[in-house]
Amino acid sequence: MKLNELDTPSLLLQQDRMTRNIARMQAQLARKGVALRPHVKTGKSIDVVRRMLDAGASAITVSTLKEADYFAAHGVKDILYAVGIVPAKVAHVAELQRRGVRMTVILDSVEAARGLAQAAQQQGVCIPALIEIDCDNHRAGILPDDALLLDIAAVLHDAASTELHGVMTHSGASYDKPGEAAIRAVAQREREAVLQASQRLKAAGYPCPVVSVGSTPTALFGEDFSGITEVRAGVYVFFDLVMAGLGVCAVDDIALSVLTSVIGHQPRKQQILVDAGWMAMSRDHGTASHAVDQGYGLVCDLQGKPIGDLIIAEANQEHGVIMSRSGAALDLAAYPVGMRLRILPNHACATAAQHAQYQVVEGASEQVTATWQRFNGW
Amino acid sequence: MKLNELDTPSLLLQQDRMTRNIARMQAQLARKGVALRPHVKTGKSIDVVRRMLDAGASAITVSTLKEADYFAAHGVKDILYAVGIVPAKVAHVAELQRRGVRMTVILDSVEAARGLAQAAQQQGVCIPALIEIDCDNHRAGILPDDALLLDIAAVLHDAASTELHGVMTHSGASYDKPGEAAIRAVAQREREAVLQASQRLKAAGYPCPVVSVGSTPTALFGEDFSGITEVRAGVYVFFDLVMAGLGVCAVDDIALSVLTSVIGHQPRKQQILVDAGWMAMSRDHGTASHAVDQGYGLVCDLQGKPIGDLIIAEANQEHGVIMSRSGAALDLAAYPVGMRLRILPNHACATAAQHAQYQVVEGASEQVTATWQRFNGW
Repeated sequence: MKLNELDTPSLLLQQDRMTRNIARMQAQLARKGVALRPHVKTGKSIDVVRRMLDAGASAITVSTLKEADYFAAHGVKDILYAVGIVPAKVAHVAELQRRGVRMTVILDSVEAARGLAQAAQQQGVCIPALIEIDCDNHRAGILPDDALLLDIAAVLHDAASTELHGVMTHSGASYDKPGEAAIRAVAQREREAVLQASQRLKAAGYPCPVVSVGSTPTALFGEDFSGITEVRAGVYVFFDLVMAGLGVCAVDDIALSVLTSVIGHQPRKQQILVDAGWMAMSRDHGTASHAVDQGYGLVCDLQGKPIGDLIIAEANQEHGVIMSRSGAALDLAAYPVGMRLRILPNHACATAAQHAQYQVVEGASEQVTATWQRFNGW
Repeated sequence: MKLNELDTPSLLLQQDRMTRNIARMQAQLARKGVALRPHVKTGKSIDVVRRMLDAGASAITVSTLKEADYFAAHGVKDILYAVGIVPAKVAHVAELQRRGVRMTVILDSVEAARGLAQAAQQQGVCIPALIEIDCDNHRAGILPDDALLLDIAAVLHDAASTELHGVMTHSGASYDKPGEAAIRAVAQREREAVLQASQRLKAAGYPCPVVSVGSTPTALFGEDFSGITEVRAGVYVFFDLVMAGLGVCAVDDIALSVLTSVIGHQPRKQQILVDAGWMAMSRDHGTASHAVDQGYGLVCDLQGKPIGDLIIAEANQEHGVIMSRSGAALDLAAYPVGMRLRILPNHACATAAQHAQYQVVEGASEQVTATWQRFNGW
């Protein structure tokens, strides 16, 4: 099938770009001598994740237990569930463990540790857990110097139903400032935070086999990973306009796009209307605070090449409104009704989540070479 | 099953509220003597839409041809596809027509009308079309006094493969200003715009059997529907925080919520973390410009009652961050890890689209009475 024969909107995955992105991350972390545990929440497809694993990764990170179920069914044996565990989810984790998966969970309080220990005991299993460290005031975790660290460690270490497995952090701040120097500084803080926590654990006589960090920007621009045992990163597999805006990738590294059809024009407003609205693109406007605001996506031709400064400036459910970012007049006749365009997304995880499959293309070819299923939900 | 036994996050539908919302819209339009053609893009479930139809509607509006396929398979015989038609979609429309569905399409240019006529001719069918009118400079359509109106009418009327079926408009401006008076003024402009267009068509000797308007706010607050043959509205079935912020409904009319679990706390920041992030809520922040910014959702207890001014202030993929809107300190101990909460959404269409089913509840009961499937995609 050709791009002109697909229904619109459709989600396209340019495989050569994805292959290059995977190789880049793997090469960077091989150089640094640290293992990669890819986050699969971006792809949610064995066809995507198999290529991440084939490139050298052996374990994965998930954001939902549905991801864990699915990838376990596809043979993945080592899974980190990187959202704070609650007692009601422990039976599900235990069931995965009984299926032969090494499931690790995370938490950041004595209360959650006790809840895990009790629920795991009821299930008759022993579950390894990482203590989440807050390296940048971003979201979850305890500060690396918090007295609670040793209290949580004591609960996990002493209970027969839990195993203190180490520490982890995620530097959400790596999305805040563009440029290699800024991201390198964030990566340094990320590393120092978990190292400090792991040293405190070891000094108190606790084991800390895992010291885990992660984000695509810090993974790619971090200089020093000594003392770190694994890096988690996900969005690098596709990249997106947020990553490009941060200087982490180039626009032509972005492997994901939405195929759309022109459905009309508004000459008075110099607008082109397309059938990719927020349902196809997501409502993510992650470049809104960037130097270059990409609206709800950057408009490309069928070969994936950006067309001037055209963006999806506004989005309704099934309508996207294309305008020039600079407000320049458009040659509307060059975009007839029915013409197809490709839109690069702000946030690959969010845009992919609006679709049930990837239509795979290679380079500038308009031939679809494969259709890969993906899943959503919980 | 009880709410405490469901996986989190899950999408809840409070059926008694939905029933009340459907009855309110039907009663309003019955009073006004105008037909309702509900927009089913909000519910995307026969279990929801059957109740809209049972209340008195006999035809529907769809935003995708997948919706048309699905509802046709469930016996709906009269469907308006309310996104500008492109030639490549005409084969699909023709196939639906061959299955016995009266399919009507919309367009707003001579180019699209010619494209439709040619594609319909190739399919050997005759497809009725409405001309889209722009009543408020919002999105698509031609102005009611645009000379193009008669040019488009001529193409649709003269071609054997198309039928000029009338005019339609959608007042996106009905979402711009709160309050009954402001919305009533928008409803008046909406009606006047399509009436003017229909009068021009009739004066030129063209048929115009359908004069269609639509939006939930204007449908509920419009005073005069004379000359209008049908009203399209969708979000009224569930309502949401955007509608409440506009004064169109009360917060306790909102039938949709997301069930979530507390996964942690950040005492320094007076935050509660839950497992409903943007994946469960959507990235829609439609109340950002309202007098009351609801963040990514308003926090309620298990019975659906708002808890003070707690909102999802920030959202990551699978993490929601609850804070007090006013910045007040929280009694974090009152929200232990594992506790369940319900979050009312900004935009029902967007939040529902992140889920594959509705868990149905009634009133303040914590019992799930049914599970209804919904679909997404194209």
